[in-house]
Amino acid sequence: MFKILNLVVPNIMLSKSQISFINSLKQKKYREEHQLFIAEGAKIVPELLNSSIVVKQVYATSDFLRNNVIPSTVERFEIKENELERISSLTKANEVLAVCETPNYFLDSESLKGKLTLVLDDIKDPGNLGTIIRIADWFGIENIVCSSETVDAFNPKVVQATMGSIARIKVHYINLIDFLKQQRTGVTLSGVEGKPKIYGALLEGKNIYTEKLSSEGLIVIGNESRGISEEVQNLITDKISIPSFSHYKSGGGEAESLNAAIATSIICSEFRRR
Amino acid sequence: MFKILNLVVPNIMLSKSQISFINSLKQKKYREEHQLFIAEGAKIVPELLNSSIVVKQVYATSDFLRNNVIPSTVERFEIKENELERISSLTKANEVLAVCETPNYFLDSESLKGKLTLVLDDIKDPGNLGTIIRIADWFGIENIVCSSETVDAFNPKVVQATMGSIARIKVHYINLIDFLKQQRTGVTLSGVEGKPKIYGALLEGKNIYTEKLSSEGLIVIGNESRGISEEVQNLITDKISIPSFSHYKSGGGEAESLNAAIATSIICSEFRRR
Repeated sequence: MFKILNLVVPNIMLSKSQISFINSLKQKKYREEHQLFIAEGAKIVPELLNSSIVVKQVYATSDFLRNNVIPSTVERFEIKENELERISSLTKANEVLAVCETPNYFLDSESLKGKLTLVLDDIKDPGNLGTIIRIADWFGIENIVCSSETVDAFNPKVVQATMGSIARIKVHYINLIDFLKQQRTGVTLSGVEGKPKIYGALLEGKNIYTEKLSSEGLIVIGNESRGISEEVQNLITDKISIPSFSHYKSGGGEAESLNAAIATSIICSEFRRR
Repeated sequence: MFKILNLVVPNIMLSKSQISFINSLKQKKYREEHQLFIAEGAKIVPELLNSSIVVKQVYATSDFLRNNVIPSTVERFEIKENELERISSLTKANEVLAVCETPNYFLDSESLKGKLTLVLDDIKDPGNLGTIIRIADWFGIENIVCSSETVDAFNPKVVQATMGSIARIKVHYINLIDFLKQQRTGVTLSGVEGKPKIYGALLEGKNIYTEKLSSEGLIVIGNESRGISEEVQNLITDKISIPSFSHYKSGGGEAESLNAAIATSIICSEFRRR
């Protein structure tokens, strides 16, 4: 890692090592090694600065620095638009890029008690994960438990798609099978009978619009192509489904599935409206 | 336009003019000029072949041609993977690319009667429009009326995001203000009192979970950044809103909005579940 200078350097030229260091954080390997991630843009960075996320550095245009209050603990680099382009992951760089510490949340099963938690079984698309984090934030879901194969929440594309919600939602990566088995024994998270409900959207599930839904439990969302894996399906306690109102049920094709993030939003909406 | 040969040519080499013609269809200007669009992939193309969309040509690998029945009216070109890469819009070409006729739907206000219709006020992101078309298909909404500034539904990114629903949903482009004014006079689409309800999701709207919702009417979805434009807002008859359950209402930031497609899915789900 390049040496961090403890002073504000106005209008600097970015060094080659800075550029290559920041660009390296676009790869999971280096994010994990340094426990850092990047966030960009005049909407998201101020939200992160105003959250529990530790922002280490801010690379910003003079406009951004003039219009935003940056805490003194954050190292600031005033750079030109064309320099920002060299480190940005966006199609069009947007005023500011921040280097932040990756938060490490402890998955305390006790703290899942009495709450709804999303469980992601191999969500692969960064846009979908980012949108799901944003949905969780909207519906007051604090924790998202992800299979190890789910795309990294600190991937720049995910961070951008969360629109700042990444600062508020705790995303955990674990061995999903072990976690769900443990939940089913009721050792950790307790439902009414000491075991939480594990909901999963499956074709043969009960109509989500008419089914009684608990205000505590786990909601499993499957992979974009294959849905919920068979191993995880076996651990679902309550199968639910979103009915289709398609006109094309018989012949001529039909919308055979909803996008993973869309299904998540409808399910969360149903759990919360009751 | 290059000349269409009326025979099956196995294992051809794509000509330069073919390649440049197909690639030109990635631009709206040429799609409009030729009234053609492209669709790709082993999931979507068979759906289009099995729909009311007129497929003119199919460029496919030998694998695809072996596993799928192509109607004799469709001109087939068997090409190699690396040739497909040269005409594909996808990150990774997927077996087949089809050139299809752009359908021209007549916006008959009479046919909107008794139905729910989505109205899009400048949706700009192709992924969002594609997802909204897929949601409409799921919830049995036949027509989507778009402002002229909404992204083109036959943009390859939109077509791909619809996952085949583009074959079933009628997407219309019009002057939105004129259309909504006309609806409000009740001249064309008749509600209970001869005028349809025009719903719009706005911050000050009534709680969608508790509000009585009609099974007929127009649902306006706003632009990703600015929401519903002021001019369109003035034509809304029923303001609705999706309540947030965020824990961060007071201070510390909050999920301040939902993605346009996510909001659409929650609204459609609420209209349909009753």
